[in-house]
Amino acid sequence: MNKTRLEAFSDGVLAIIITIMVLELKTPESTEWEEMKAVLPALGSYALSFVFIGIYWGNHHHLLHTVKKVNSKIIWANMHLLFWLSLIPFATRWIEENHFDKISVAVFGSLLFISGLAYFILQQIIVRHHHFQEKMKEAMNKATRKGLISTVLYLVSIFAAFIHPYISEALFVLVAILWLVPDKNIEKALEE
Amino acid sequence: MNKTRLEAFSDGVLAIIITIMVLELKTPESTEWEEMKAVLPALGSYALSFVFIGIYWGNHHHLLHTVKKVNSKIIWANMHLLFWLSLIPFATRWIEENHFDKISVAVFGSLLFISGLAYFILQQIIVRHHHFQEKMKEAMNKATRKGLISTVLYLVSIFAAFIHPYISEALFVLVAILWLVPDKNIEKALEE
Amino acid sequence: MNKTRLEAFSDGVLAIIITIMVLELKTPESTEWEEMKAVLPALGSYALSFVFIGIYWGNHHHLLHTVKKVNSKIIWANMHLLFWLSLIPFATRWIEENHFDKISVAVFGSLLFISGLAYFILQQIIVRHHHFQEKMKEAMNKATRKGLISTVLYLVSIFAAFIHPYISEALFVLVAILWLVPDKNIEKALEE
Amino acid sequence: MNKTRLEAFSDGVLAIIITIMVLELKTPESTEWEEMKAVLPALGSYALSFVFIGIYWGNHHHLLHTVKKVNSKIIWANMHLLFWLSLIPFATRWIEENHFDKISVAVFGSLLFISGLAYFILQQIIVRHHHFQEKMKEAMNKATRKGLISTVLYLVSIFAAFIHPYISEALFVLVAILWLVPDKNIEKALEE
Repeated sequence: MNKTRLEAFSDGVLAIIITIMVLELKTPESTEWEEMKAVLPALGSYALSFVFIGIYWGNHHHLLHTVKKVNSKIIWANMHLLFWLSLIPFATRWIEENHFDKISVAVFGSLLFISGLAYFILQQIIVRHHHFQEKMKEAMNKATRKGLISTVLYLVSIFAAFIHPYISEALFVLVAILWLVPDKNIEKALEE
Repeated sequence: MNKTRLEAFSDGVLAIIITIMVLELKTPESTEWEEMKAVLPALGSYALSFVFIGIYWGNHHHLLHTVKKVNSKIIWANMHLLFWLSLIPFATRWIEENHFDKISVAVFGSLLFISGLAYFILQQIIVRHHHFQEKMKEAMNKATRKGLISTVLYLVSIFAAFIHPYISEALFVLVAILWLVPDKNIEKALEE
Repeated sequence: MNKTRLEAFSDGVLAIIITIMVLELKTPESTEWEEMKAVLPALGSYALSFVFIGIYWGNHHHLLHTVKKVNSKIIWANMHLLFWLSLIPFATRWIEENHFDKISVAVFGSLLFISGLAYFILQQIIVRHHHFQEKMKEAMNKATRKGLISTVLYLVSIFAAFIHPYISEALFVLVAILWLVPDKNIEKALEE
Repeated sequence: MNKTRLEAFSDGVLAIIITIMVLELKTPESTEWEEMKAVLPALGSYALSFVFIGIYWGNHHHLLHTVKKVNSKIIWANMHLLFWLSLIPFATRWIEENHFDKISVAVFGSLLFISGLAYFILQQIIVRHHHFQEKMKEAMNKATRKGLISTVLYLVSIFAAFIHPYISEALFVLVAILWLVPDKNIEKALEE
């Protein structure tokens, strides 16, 4: 089983998820500054969701790059990840409609938490089916550590939302920054 | 005629079908538990449709993997399958709007039944145009048997909806479980 | 310049065009037969538009298959074709909303006519930039002849709509049938 | 790191951006000429946005063609470009809803300006990571010059909108024409 179609299908789904959120952005009702200002939080959370999907695409790209054979388990673990990610536009819309209400932010955090777990499961299944070299394993472990940190931060964000939703939002931004620093380790290991 | 573009086009269409359903999910009107609970059936039927499209993608992946040449007959049998699958988001939306009314569930069952037939036609056309090895043929036959069982279950679900829509829903879940168990046979035959 | 990305981009656009029409299909307001019947014309014109886009994809597949090098002229002739095709969902929606009114049908016919011309232009640019073998040229000419016939039929359909929209609809179905019979000629020429 | 998936993902996102704008086109409410005429500006600005995305796709195609290795910096510079381009449907819709009001046109100009900068950044990062031959460098420089001219014109269009929105619109059309003349230089350099 080659991995080309798995990559192509995932790319398609992620490209659609990242782009359809624009369809749901409500345009300001006029060109008055007051109306335009009211759209900024929605634009901000669009940007954040865009970055999150972008991060997943980047990591997915790196992860699948290491894969040589694809089996049904990998296909379904991948589908499982895509399912949770596909709910991000839905949760983003809901957050906007409820003006960053604590419950909607907690649900968004939960979704990111579950997506993080789904990614972790995919990674574990891939690792188990391949015999990576020592260098590669180390790099994978570092990425996994990073993934665990962000998963823990997501978990914290769920409860933090009930103290104040902005704490959770700050945690989301923190995780985004954490991942925007690229997986140099995997890149280096691949080069060697 | 190479098959790359047929796969790419099918991947594109299936990726869109599987993802646009999220656009149609209505967000809860507030963050009250009552409102959130009301969205759960829609989320459930989104998840079910996601799994069904996922199954078709997985099987399509396995089936096309065996193909070496593509001709116009295969192209049109594939287009025919995609047409019926593209109606799944439409039927899913209708089911939700009618709160799992028996007729809407029966129509959904009919759509799955017709999609099953369309897949069967595609498979037959592919088998007829290729000379598969004995091992491969056996694996294909087993998959076909599985396909026939689910097609029969879809047929039953159409009529069962008039007794109670939940019987049909249970049958849909049963077929989903049946297919989530992967086509080990084809995978094994390919490896040999 | 290789053609892979031109094909991938065109596949993407065509896959989206063919699928988003489903988003615009209005579900019946209830499960009453009267309401369901009212949706049938919309479903019918969705099916017809699906077939038209499918035909263009099939022909595009065959045409691009013959291409070895891609230049900017081909890229823009292709973009031009995609532009007109992208308006098909728009025109389909308009036809449905106006219940197959003569003017909307005439506009749909004009769109198909212009798309036909855009395809013809793309084909001519490709032919001019390649030195095809005699066999290939003959096959291309036959396809061109078929294309010309349908373009003429589209032209007739524009005016026929003012006599009765159903004449135009019948002509659309006629063209669809004409193209569903595959380009055996190109396939044979390629094999030789 | 190979570039195939980066291209595929970008193609997917650009294909969706270019096509979803059709979903947002409002159909004329009847088939009266008055109603149809009212839709023409929206169709015009759809066409213009289609051309802009088309230009970016074409240039992206040329630019990525020169790339051999992809690293995380290139991935994120590309994601950054896609983010701004993904807002084009949003801005296009807003312009239409406000009937080409000066502020909405200025915002559209700003978006094109920022997208131009994002493209420039991507180009610079790619150039820095590759050792191109002399010929190639010259061609890239010419394309960069063209890019700078259009970026300056976008900047002018932002301020021109406050004199009269039509001046900005004329500038947009001018840039489109400027780019529709293909990058012959890069094509020639690649052939040599």
